[in-house]
Amino acid sequence: MISVIPLDTLLRFVEEDAPWGDVTSAAIVPDLSCQAVIRANETGVVAGLAEARALFEHYGVAVRQHAADGTAVAPGQVLLGLDGDAKAILLVERTALNIIGRMSGIATKTRSCVEAVRQAAPGVRIAATRKTCPGLRVFDKKAVALGGGDPHRYSLSDMILIKDNHLALVPLADAVRKARAASVYRTVEVEVETVEDAVAAAEAGADTILLDNMPPERIRDAVRALEARGLRDRVVVEVSGSVTEENLTGYAVAGVDIISMGALTHSVRNFDVSLKVLRGVTTVPL
Amino acid sequence: MISVIPLDTLLRFVEEDAPWGDVTSAAIVPDLSCQAVIRANETGVVAGLAEARALFEHYGVAVRQHAADGTAVAPGQVLLGLDGDAKAILLVERTALNIIGRMSGIATKTRSCVEAVRQAAPGVRIAATRKTCPGLRVFDKKAVALGGGDPHRYSLSDMILIKDNHLALVPLADAVRKARAASVYRTVEVEVETVEDAVAAAEAGADTILLDNMPPERIRDAVRALEARGLRDRVVVEVSGSVTEENLTGYAVAGVDIISMGALTHSVRNFDVSLKVLRGVTTVPL
Amino acid sequence: MISVIPLDTLLRFVEEDAPWGDVTSAAIVPDLSCQAVIRANETGVVAGLAEARALFEHYGVAVRQHAADGTAVAPGQVLLGLDGDAKAILLVERTALNIIGRMSGIATKTRSCVEAVRQAAPGVRIAATRKTCPGLRVFDKKAVALGGGDPHRYSLSDMILIKDNHLALVPLADAVRKARAASVYRTVEVEVETVEDAVAAAEAGADTILLDNMPPERIRDAVRALEARGLRDRVVVEVSGSVTEENLTGYAVAGVDIISMGALTHSVRNFDVSLKVLRGVTTVPL
Amino acid sequence: MISVIPLDTLLRFVEEDAPWGDVTSAAIVPDLSCQAVIRANETGVVAGLAEARALFEHYGVAVRQHAADGTAVAPGQVLLGLDGDAKAILLVERTALNIIGRMSGIATKTRSCVEAVRQAAPGVRIAATRKTCPGLRVFDKKAVALGGGDPHRYSLSDMILIKDNHLALVPLADAVRKARAASVYRTVEVEVETVEDAVAAAEAGADTILLDNMPPERIRDAVRALEARGLRDRVVVEVSGSVTEENLTGYAVAGVDIISMGALTHSVRNFDVSLKVLRGVTTVPL
Amino acid sequence: MISVIPLDTLLRFVEEDAPWGDVTSAAIVPDLSCQAVIRANETGVVAGLAEARALFEHYGVAVRQHAADGTAVAPGQVLLGLDGDAKAILLVERTALNIIGRMSGIATKTRSCVEAVRQAAPGVRIAATRKTCPGLRVFDKKAVALGGGDPHRYSLSDMILIKDNHLALVPLADAVRKARAASVYRTVEVEVETVEDAVAAAEAGADTILLDNMPPERIRDAVRALEARGLRDRVVVEVSGSVTEENLTGYAVAGVDIISMGALTHSVRNFDVSLKVLRGVTTVPL
Amino acid sequence: MISVIPLDTLLRFVEEDAPWGDVTSAAIVPDLSCQAVIRANETGVVAGLAEARALFEHYGVAVRQHAADGTAVAPGQVLLGLDGDAKAILLVERTALNIIGRMSGIATKTRSCVEAVRQAAPGVRIAATRKTCPGLRVFDKKAVALGGGDPHRYSLSDMILIKDNHLALVPLADAVRKARAASVYRTVEVEVETVEDAVAAAEAGADTILLDNMPPERIRDAVRALEARGLRDRVVVEVSGSVTEENLTGYAVAGVDIISMGALTHSVRNFDVSLKVLRGVTTVPL
Repeated sequence: MISVIPLDTLLRFVEEDAPWGDVTSAAIVPDLSCQAVIRANETGVVAGLAEARALFEHYGVAVRQHAADGTAVAPGQVLLGLDGDAKAILLVERTALNIIGRMSGIATKTRSCVEAVRQAAPGVRIAATRKTCPGLRVFDKKAVALGGGDPHRYSLSDMILIKDNHLALVPLADAVRKARAASVYRTVEVEVETVEDAVAAAEAGADTILLDNMPPERIRDAVRALEARGLRDRVVVEVSGSVTEENLTGYAVAGVDIISMGALTHSVRNFDVSLKVLRGVTTVPL
Repeated sequence: MISVIPLDTLLRFVEEDAPWGDVTSAAIVPDLSCQAVIRANETGVVAGLAEARALFEHYGVAVRQHAADGTAVAPGQVLLGLDGDAKAILLVERTALNIIGRMSGIATKTRSCVEAVRQAAPGVRIAATRKTCPGLRVFDKKAVALGGGDPHRYSLSDMILIKDNHLALVPLADAVRKARAASVYRTVEVEVETVEDAVAAAEAGADTILLDNMPPERIRDAVRALEARGLRDRVVVEVSGSVTEENLTGYAVAGVDIISMGALTHSVRNFDVSLKVLRGVTTVPL
Repeated sequence: MISVIPLDTLLRFVEEDAPWGDVTSAAIVPDLSCQAVIRANETGVVAGLAEARALFEHYGVAVRQHAADGTAVAPGQVLLGLDGDAKAILLVERTALNIIGRMSGIATKTRSCVEAVRQAAPGVRIAATRKTCPGLRVFDKKAVALGGGDPHRYSLSDMILIKDNHLALVPLADAVRKARAASVYRTVEVEVETVEDAVAAAEAGADTILLDNMPPERIRDAVRALEARGLRDRVVVEVSGSVTEENLTGYAVAGVDIISMGALTHSVRNFDVSLKVLRGVTTVPL
Repeated sequence: MISVIPLDTLLRFVEEDAPWGDVTSAAIVPDLSCQAVIRANETGVVAGLAEARALFEHYGVAVRQHAADGTAVAPGQVLLGLDGDAKAILLVERTALNIIGRMSGIATKTRSCVEAVRQAAPGVRIAATRKTCPGLRVFDKKAVALGGGDPHRYSLSDMILIKDNHLALVPLADAVRKARAASVYRTVEVEVETVEDAVAAAEAGADTILLDNMPPERIRDAVRALEARGLRDRVVVEVSGSVTEENLTGYAVAGVDIISMGALTHSVRNFDVSLKVLRGVTTVPL
Repeated sequence: MISVIPLDTLLRFVEEDAPWGDVTSAAIVPDLSCQAVIRANETGVVAGLAEARALFEHYGVAVRQHAADGTAVAPGQVLLGLDGDAKAILLVERTALNIIGRMSGIATKTRSCVEAVRQAAPGVRIAATRKTCPGLRVFDKKAVALGGGDPHRYSLSDMILIKDNHLALVPLADAVRKARAASVYRTVEVEVETVEDAVAAAEAGADTILLDNMPPERIRDAVRALEARGLRDRVVVEVSGSVTEENLTGYAVAGVDIISMGALTHSVRNFDVSLKVLRGVTTVPL
Repeated sequence: MISVIPLDTLLRFVEEDAPWGDVTSAAIVPDLSCQAVIRANETGVVAGLAEARALFEHYGVAVRQHAADGTAVAPGQVLLGLDGDAKAILLVERTALNIIGRMSGIATKTRSCVEAVRQAAPGVRIAATRKTCPGLRVFDKKAVALGGGDPHRYSLSDMILIKDNHLALVPLADAVRKARAASVYRTVEVEVETVEDAVAAAEAGADTILLDNMPPERIRDAVRALEARGLRDRVVVEVSGSVTEENLTGYAVAGVDIISMGALTHSVRNFDVSLKVLRGVTTVPL
């Protein structure tokens, strides 16, 4: 899990939302303190509370955290209790909710896929891809990890993954050989679309075989073909492409190790959270 | 429409995806030029092509644009044709696709809502909210505009919008009066949840009444109440909360001017696009 | 009023003033604490104290604030009392004084114009323009607000303002119609230079008519023409161009709502403030 | 003279003025090319044209420069001729004019002081101070140089200047001795307010004596005292404090080498320039 | 190899070297073009030419490259030929030479180690560590790669490497088990200081065993112990600590796969290069 | 000495080392506090402790500093004692050590040269050059100062230094005259390679004569030639080029004032420091 998202990244989001301040609060809100709560409005796995907390605290708001990132929450559950300058709370509100909403949406979907697979095929892992929001990769990957998924590659600098577009330029065996020679530290993964290529990649020395856009029955064929050649134990088998939360278990039981899903981060449903100023508990002017 | 997304913002996304370069290309791809195409894999409204193009061109890749941002495209349609250094194309690939995928997803959903409303209630507008991805507001708002929607407020600095949390701290009439006094340039909008408050806000001088989380029948009541007092023509009536693509037309025919939907930008389904290196048309080494 | 100018913006100014540290202090000042005061050297409205305070506190200097931003001060009046590391006080000195000097200069001039108009024509407002120092808009606009003026547009993204250069490209009525259609949230203002165009703009539906570079008598004509057509109450009337602190009241009594003055921010007279280290009250070495 | 102001600094100013684009142009201006001119509206010394030109060219506008930075211009004189996308010209307009307006204002005032002194006391130089706009020092100093002035210290890291606040903490002779010992490369200047201290500073080995806030007759006394002790030729004599464009020559003829004036940069009168789109010469749509 | 070091990173180095321009050139160099050459002054492997070239070209200087990065050069050999504005060449000179000097220094030392090992023990690799200059990792790692070395981990986010400080907190077997469970994509390396721990790490499932601070004879013992248990082929064996260019071959022949050396990047000897303006071939004024 | 290196510069180094967090700690280290020490492993002059301390404290680790920057330390000596979250200590470890290692390496070498010269020729100073690591100049110059050296020019904006490449474009006397005229504040230094040019530069009015690449005997000749013409006392004499720690004293006794050495910063040997987590003193979980 990624523990540190720098405060200055978070502050840039507030500046994006209020480049010249909050004209509404400035116009109508007097100088006073108030209390507020951030509540979950649905069931899910919460994430982004650490980031929201850091933001509120930066602006001098006292925060009491009632749920840990990565845990399941129920509708109505209070996530954060806030106490401080009313204008500060209103300034940070939307940025904090946008972060919690996106990260919890990712964590919730990831957890749901992880649970589905755990029952169908214990030991099979759910992984993310690089299909994250531009500029938000560290948030998206952290949310996947909090949901119980594997973040997979962080970037093109991490790991060697030979894809169809590489193979349009370089023959498979040649590509794997060069990749192996290039680094002893980085895992070499090869994306293939046929049983034959899966075997060829394993024989060439790939660490991980990524079966892309193959239906579950073809995936079984590929796994059997690897077993028949004594290659299955030497490689990790990953599948991707066309996998959805609905058809997930079909892939999970096909004999693979990992299922990677772009949809975890490229098609996020916002988790519903809201901030409520507590009426009547406003305190004396600052 | 927003025409300018600065190149250095786009370049930071490439650096996020390759902080130390692309280890795969470096290991296996020789120095050669190739051609590639970016294709739509589904029906929708495309967006983000201008940004993708600027990125590829920055890295010396020649780009031929086959579709305009904001236009409808069909599955299989070529959006961009690319010709240049193979490593440069592969370096930018994922960033470009992530931008096009998200922006086209937003534009497509927006267009779909706009079309639904156009048939049910011509003249009613679809607007976005501030529930955008942190750091990506300019992209998200541009995509809404390309889809035919109204970007609404860009930030807290734009416009005065008095919401429930403000009203927990300041009485409605007082809030509107202060807001009016604060600026002659900025529109004053008030969010209300009851018919009575809708009328009170209009009487207090709000430019826009935002009916929040009210079912269509209550919205009709509010509109009628405004009409009965001769206030309807003096205000813009907006609705938000619980509006989905499915129940949208019910709100549209309730007599309102604008429907604002957080889901346009907070719960984006990625538009499916892919980049394919054209096998066999690689050109002579650079 | 804009409440938040991010600390990192302020710190960049100190780095501009000491990219490799303060060679004088490093050479001659021993490690010791001292007390110092920042004093006004003339009469005016002070601004920038919040920013100066944040800077000194960042460098560990204790600050006692003796005057509030936006209030009138007299020559010799102590604005900030400082107690801390002598080198830190000297490092921040010039940056703090430059901020206070510029912002107080703007606030003072704004207040002076506001007061002049208040007597001549109560209810008429003084507004700024976008003629601010590049990179300092948030400071300049905040200073205008502290002086009692209206910040007007923050940027080209805020509000629709159709000027002479637009009208060289698009006919007036066409421009207003397109502007109205483009957004229901943003005010539409039109700059005109003749009585006829003022009427045409109001008839076309502009919210605000900006009478530019017209002498007071022509402005009266324009106001009367609007009244004659029953349009005066439907629009805000603003004047700009050739307005100075000297001729201001002539415009104020011409029947307008707002007078906007580029000179508030483009031609600032520095407000005279200075920092004095208190001799003899240096404390024991740190 | 400073030749290079990085383009990214300039682009940040455009982003400040249009964080989400130009809503007016987007709403009403069609895709077409046009011609425009930037003209001086008064007499003065122009500066900032290189920066304005770099900005327009960055946005694809062709620029023809009709006057060189640092030269005198007359009212009505065309400074820059522009030809390009109308929206691009309008996007950059205000930023370019703000830069030219401030820099030319500084250059004009500097030149005026330089000329006044040249006649009264040839060989006496006019210098700026560190009282520049926060974040704009490189612009302000360049404008001073273009006006014929000496930029003086760029920052606290440049040069050793012992001021009253240092002398409140360290005895004068001690301070100069330490400063001399600290560096052989950096000039050592000492600010004094009495004739005795002027002599003491020169005897202690200062390179430059800054006579601060002394009337011309006292300055003559100080110069004579230095001469009497054979110290005058070993030091540069600078004056500052209470010097204005009006009383400047009184100081110039008092026997000094340099007059430094905070007002050159802290109280800038904007030089009046404007951009005019040429009606009727719009070209065919892009 | 890392192909892309962003131009804005390079430009920041020029700004560091000339925050307010080059006062020498501004004072004495007229506007003219000249030719210059960058020459190697010693034997070595050159690196950083691509970066230097990008910088000169950014400032409008034409560049002819006479040697490829990563190739051996001889004293006196011309690396880059330059033709352009004299002030631009002098502005970039030191930054370009500092980059080439450091990167070539690293590449040269790396190549020397690689060659020494190639003769003594073909197949053994030389790798870098994270002991790079803060802020310059991408440069340092690229230079290692150009010298023929392996860049090893780019950062703490790349790969799992369990070191002595981790083992002070978590038992070895437990640490390896958790590491294995955490990711299927990232290599797991364990640093050990005894033969027993080397075996334990391999048995626990580490991919790479890093023998730290062990003399060659103990390294042989560790390799033999791994062989005796049939573990040698399942792991990569790396050594580090106390390895110098002088004692390198002793380690190379001890049966290991990789030797990683902090000294490649933490103790760099600058490669001697210089820029010479060609006297007499200055061209006509610009 | 430079006292302030901004925290955000330091934090960027940690982000460089852990863009997506520390995958090792995340995988295997539980939430617990521990104690650790940073120790010197050799004799030298320590530097960078202030920077390391600021970093650890930023991440919530309590720091006890046992040695002052700029003081001599012995092998095994504890420099910093740390107490805090184990993951935070491990996150900052390498960045802190890289900073201390480089800065102490520079300070140690500088001190060694300073001491050698102090014995051979008291009063002669050791100075650095602009041959620093790109992006790290403020660190490198501070380390030189802590070692007792003179930082010399910080940048091209500081001081006028006329070098061989300038003299290829402008005759010497002309160059010095223009330089003198350009500024009264900046020292004028001229680099020469012959006795004749040394005399010519001094006669032309240079403040400092830099004898470049001349052997000690020629340097003596130059000093004598200056003395013979009564110029020696009017100039500072500096030597550079081919000076090493070994041959340093030969130059020191040749009658010069300053010896500047690029090698102080361009060829740094890392000072050996390490961080050790104290086994057994880990505290209860956080």
